[in-house]
Amino acid sequence: MCDRTKNTNVRFSLPAVCVVWQTAMIILFGVFIRYDEESDPHWLEHKKLNNISSDIENDFYFRYPSFQDVHVMIFVGFGFLMTFLKRYSFGGVGFNFLIAAFGLQWALLMQGWFHSLDYTDGKIKIGIENLINADFCVAGCLIAYGALLGKVSPVQLMVLTLFGITLFAVEEYIILNLIHARDAGGSMVIHTFGAYYGLSISWMLYRPNLDQSSRLQGSVYHSDVFATIGTLFLWMFWPSFNSAITDHGDGQHRAVINTYLALASTVLTTVAMSSLFQKHGKLDMVHVQNSTLAGGVAVGTAAEFMLMPYGSLIVGFCCGVISTLGYIYISPFLEKYMKVQDTCGVHNLHAMPGVIGGIVGAITAAAASESVYGHEGLVKTFDFEGAFEKMEPTTQGGHQAGGLCVALIFGIGGGMIVGAILRLPIWGDPADDNCFDDETYWEVREFEKSLLCS
Amino acid sequence: MCDRTKNTNVRFSLPAVCVVWQTAMIILFGVFIRYDEESDPHWLEHKKLNNISSDIENDFYFRYPSFQDVHVMIFVGFGFLMTFLKRYSFGGVGFNFLIAAFGLQWALLMQGWFHSLDYTDGKIKIGIENLINADFCVAGCLIAYGALLGKVSPVQLMVLTLFGITLFAVEEYIILNLIHARDAGGSMVIHTFGAYYGLSISWMLYRPNLDQSSRLQGSVYHSDVFATIGTLFLWMFWPSFNSAITDHGDGQHRAVINTYLALASTVLTTVAMSSLFQKHGKLDMVHVQNSTLAGGVAVGTAAEFMLMPYGSLIVGFCCGVISTLGYIYISPFLEKYMKVQDTCGVHNLHAMPGVIGGIVGAITAAAASESVYGHEGLVKTFDFEGAFEKMEPTTQGGHQAGGLCVALIFGIGGGMIVGAILRLPIWGDPADDNCFDDETYWEVREFEKSLLCS
Amino acid sequence: MCDRTKNTNVRFSLPAVCVVWQTAMIILFGVFIRYDEESDPHWLEHKKLNNISSDIENDFYFRYPSFQDVHVMIFVGFGFLMTFLKRYSFGGVGFNFLIAAFGLQWALLMQGWFHSLDYTDGKIKIGIENLINADFCVAGCLIAYGALLGKVSPVQLMVLTLFGITLFAVEEYIILNLIHARDAGGSMVIHTFGAYYGLSISWMLYRPNLDQSSRLQGSVYHSDVFATIGTLFLWMFWPSFNSAITDHGDGQHRAVINTYLALASTVLTTVAMSSLFQKHGKLDMVHVQNSTLAGGVAVGTAAEFMLMPYGSLIVGFCCGVISTLGYIYISPFLEKYMKVQDTCGVHNLHAMPGVIGGIVGAITAAAASESVYGHEGLVKTFDFEGAFEKMEPTTQGGHQAGGLCVALIFGIGGGMIVGAILRLPIWGDPADDNCFDDETYWEVREFEKSLLCS
Repeated sequence: MCDRTKNTNVRFSLPAVCVVWQTAMIILFGVFIRYDEESDPHWLEHKKLNNISSDIENDFYFRYPSFQDVHVMIFVGFGFLMTFLKRYSFGGVGFNFLIAAFGLQWALLMQGWFHSLDYTDGKIKIGIENLINADFCVAGCLIAYGALLGKVSPVQLMVLTLFGITLFAVEEYIILNLIHARDAGGSMVIHTFGAYYGLSISWMLYRPNLDQSSRLQGSVYHSDVFATIGTLFLWMFWPSFNSAITDHGDGQHRAVINTYLALASTVLTTVAMSSLFQKHGKLDMVHVQNSTLAGGVAVGTAAEFMLMPYGSLIVGFCCGVISTLGYIYISPFLEKYMKVQDTCGVHNLHAMPGVIGGIVGAITAAAASESVYGHEGLVKTFDFEGAFEKMEPTTQGGHQAGGLCVALIFGIGGGMIVGAILRLPIWGDPADDNCFDDETYWEVREFEKSLLCS
Repeated sequence: MCDRTKNTNVRFSLPAVCVVWQTAMIILFGVFIRYDEESDPHWLEHKKLNNISSDIENDFYFRYPSFQDVHVMIFVGFGFLMTFLKRYSFGGVGFNFLIAAFGLQWALLMQGWFHSLDYTDGKIKIGIENLINADFCVAGCLIAYGALLGKVSPVQLMVLTLFGITLFAVEEYIILNLIHARDAGGSMVIHTFGAYYGLSISWMLYRPNLDQSSRLQGSVYHSDVFATIGTLFLWMFWPSFNSAITDHGDGQHRAVINTYLALASTVLTTVAMSSLFQKHGKLDMVHVQNSTLAGGVAVGTAAEFMLMPYGSLIVGFCCGVISTLGYIYISPFLEKYMKVQDTCGVHNLHAMPGVIGGIVGAITAAAASESVYGHEGLVKTFDFEGAFEKMEPTTQGGHQAGGLCVALIFGIGGGMIVGAILRLPIWGDPADDNCFDDETYWEVREFEKSLLCS
Repeated sequence: MCDRTKNTNVRFSLPAVCVVWQTAMIILFGVFIRYDEESDPHWLEHKKLNNISSDIENDFYFRYPSFQDVHVMIFVGFGFLMTFLKRYSFGGVGFNFLIAAFGLQWALLMQGWFHSLDYTDGKIKIGIENLINADFCVAGCLIAYGALLGKVSPVQLMVLTLFGITLFAVEEYIILNLIHARDAGGSMVIHTFGAYYGLSISWMLYRPNLDQSSRLQGSVYHSDVFATIGTLFLWMFWPSFNSAITDHGDGQHRAVINTYLALASTVLTTVAMSSLFQKHGKLDMVHVQNSTLAGGVAVGTAAEFMLMPYGSLIVGFCCGVISTLGYIYISPFLEKYMKVQDTCGVHNLHAMPGVIGGIVGAITAAAASESVYGHEGLVKTFDFEGAFEKMEPTTQGGHQAGGLCVALIFGIGGGMIVGAILRLPIWGDPADDNCFDDETYWEVREFEKSLLCS
């Protein structure tokens, strides 16, 4: 199946998938999705009824700046990070755009059914927080795309996204609601799940002869600069990512501080490792583009906890080291012995830091105390209310660890199932000697000359 | 006039225009422009007098994040979208920068006279909302530039901007204040006007021998990636654009949701059409760069109305299809038979979606009811106050349609007049075989070698 | 010392500096840094105690959007502005990233000791305003890097940053607290200090044979477009920079308006001068990339004062002229006769406009009156409280001028001392014929071919 020349013409399948699924979205939105009380014109009455003194207390003003930052991370951050290949910049940023645009619609539905369903009328009521969560959900699938960059067709990516969002919503519901783990920045729910989902699919789609495309499997000078745009927007806005849906007031404030510090620390150890393990001490752009972000992933869960500023620095320190060593030693090992071909190195940027983030979160939660948080602060931060009113921090730590396991199981298990589906010979994926090449799915003008020179 | 070699030396005219007009701005600002009560140090007294409890209720905090997003759209969004030509990236982003910087000053004055004049002292009082509106006003001229990209001199662009801003302010006053149409995101006021203004000028400046520059009238690989930066920043921040000046609270909140959804839907149908109508189903970057934005244009007017989430998706769906087909069929037709040379395809990205947006706005307004909006919500959303206290939604729908006609008339009529002015042989525009070339107006270092390779 | 072939291998020194200093940061943060009352879970109790009605009054919501904009300016703005060299884009954006990430940690400590030390427990309490100030502090060092771009090793840059942040914090304390000058946007504290710090170092590290690298000391087409990304993000977000730490309410609002206008005005005069002083009236990208920003620097100090809209335009007008003429006449003079090699022209972009900004601030402060500001407004804007309760605006003007002198002394004096340290032959800096070349410190893939073509 893998050896014969493949048909990469998606002229029928891609338009069909886009139009049919978009039509389905319209119908499902018509049946299910409505504005919530803060985005509905009845807000004026709601305000009076709930004694809200000013429009500024609409949740919109607490979260909109963070939402826009997250939105930039999804489309420019992830998109441009994937432009680093010399001949796959269109595919990197373009397919990222496509699947994110589809994924966020499907996420509003899937997450809505689990979290925002109004049982009085059977409708999902959406507001700014739902948009942020939809972007988060999409991030999981974009991480998975990172492992598969250049080796799959846009139709496969749409399928990956459909199933990825679905799995995400279920996994998230189990981790956050049933297990009652906290995961503000999604170390477990987003990064661990997304990375293992992508890596498992990559394992299922293993290409033994991928070296036939090796001439295209690197960067050129300018494509590396483009990718740095993605890196920086991810790095700068990560504090918004980790604080976007935390508690109003101190919760958002603290999550920003922790993330800001962890990321700063990661940059220094990434540079240190990159220089130390290269010949002549020269830095490698791949490390600077990717490993500098690992600290943001790893403080995701604990960002809203009392991780303390120095704790954030420590987490960032370790992740910079581990992630860079991952690029140098673990990625080649995975490819050679484990048959996992990981184009962007999501194992180093999302999988390992995500797991570390889950563990850090569990430890920080277990160590929480009223003396540090105050009674009210503890209840608010860990949401010890309702059925979980009597929960102890140590128990919470256990639940956090449980959440991490669920994310791993869903990622690996889900990825294997979806990978099996994507192996069907109907999706228009490229042949081994045709990977990492924009000419497969894009009209490229004057590419020949450009290639000669880059 | 068109055939002889043209003098493109703007060494006298460009500095003269810049310095004289900027000096005029200083004088006019000295006479007319002052801070409003929210940006003046008397704010402290104003607060007490009006019983405002906290500084956070200063309009600044409601609108500043949106303002900055709009600012990014104007300078990076529009600017980089116009870098796609292989040899006109400097002109695309650089002249965009120049005319936007001039236009926003002139817009503060023109819009100020119509909307923010304090009759007690004859001064225009400005605050954050005026800055947003000035950016909006500039957007109209940048859209017009899109149709003319590569074919005009910077002096012509300054003239285009001077008249464009003037026409815009008058048209806006008629549509919003006299006709009392609503147009939050400017489908009519900004996009329809701006696009037809530019297209009419392009028609007046028709170049029969433009094919002499055809070697430069395309993109190269890296210039397409640069242009994608513009696309994404426009796409991501469009929710801020459409919500920047809507009502506090639910108005801004709802406009964001509607725009977010319309844009997502547009991406899928753009990709579908692009693939379906190309040979071998390959995607065209031109479509992905431009048509994906059409949904944002088309929900501009109705963004603050109860368009409903599924309604937004439907609008986006249709605009993705229409805009992409426009690039494939209508643009070549316009150039061949209508003598309209539209470099960036603003007819597909702004004109058609703008008109659709006006129609959608009229229908949505006409269909409004108290059962959906609530009494207070209806009054607030449509501003049924003062002279318009007794207005009915159905009548409002008619007024919306009237507004659309005014935008069309001003765009086409104004463009023809300004086009006639720009035909005078004094502006330093390039000859037909010299279009789309940065060397005409820029010092370009090492261009020869770069061109060879790109 | 300068003539023999230099050893640029930083494989030991760079990792050592990064790891040791980062470890030191962790220890110092552990000893000193804690969350302040607005980012601590005790915020809930603090709220009750201080009768704060809503979470939205947490300082976070006043400043977070500005903080993120400033963050973008530091990493993307300064970073990409320095990618303009044909073969030093990695070094420009990459080393900017490294030293900013280190600098902000050290700044939190240094500034914390001076400004945020809680004497009851000896801890520094940090919140969003500290993060903004840390970014500001880093900006000073990045400006200094601009003068040295391409001629120093990353280890030298780390040393420059360590001392630069230290000097900055002392200088800032003297200017703002002891002298009681106001400097919202840092014309004196950040720009004047940073620029003269860098220029003095450059003078100490003068390379008489730098023309051996002249083949690499220019831009190519695409690297100029990359640099424009930096320009535009600096330009667009400068209003956030100058307003980020001004007073809530009218203070932030007014600073945004003044900066917005000054920058718009600068663009026009920059274009005018660039065209007027070039052959054939062609524009020079160097001017458009840099001089367009001078107005933002020059309204930094006075941004929160009643500079008036026309005053801002005048400041911008003058700075565009002066900065562009600086690039044309003063920079070559400085290099030839003063032995100051200034790669990015920070003398034109930061030094001269910074000094102008200090003078404008002094004049505007001296001219302040209760009739313009109102009594309360005057007290709040100039912070005439505590020991300075009886200060007069005219005296304040004198203090502003004093502040400017301190910035100059610290910049020039500090730069000469640090420059002497950086002359030691242990830092791995490149030889004269090896400057401006990424291959010295980076693994560059396929550079040869790329260079051939660019």
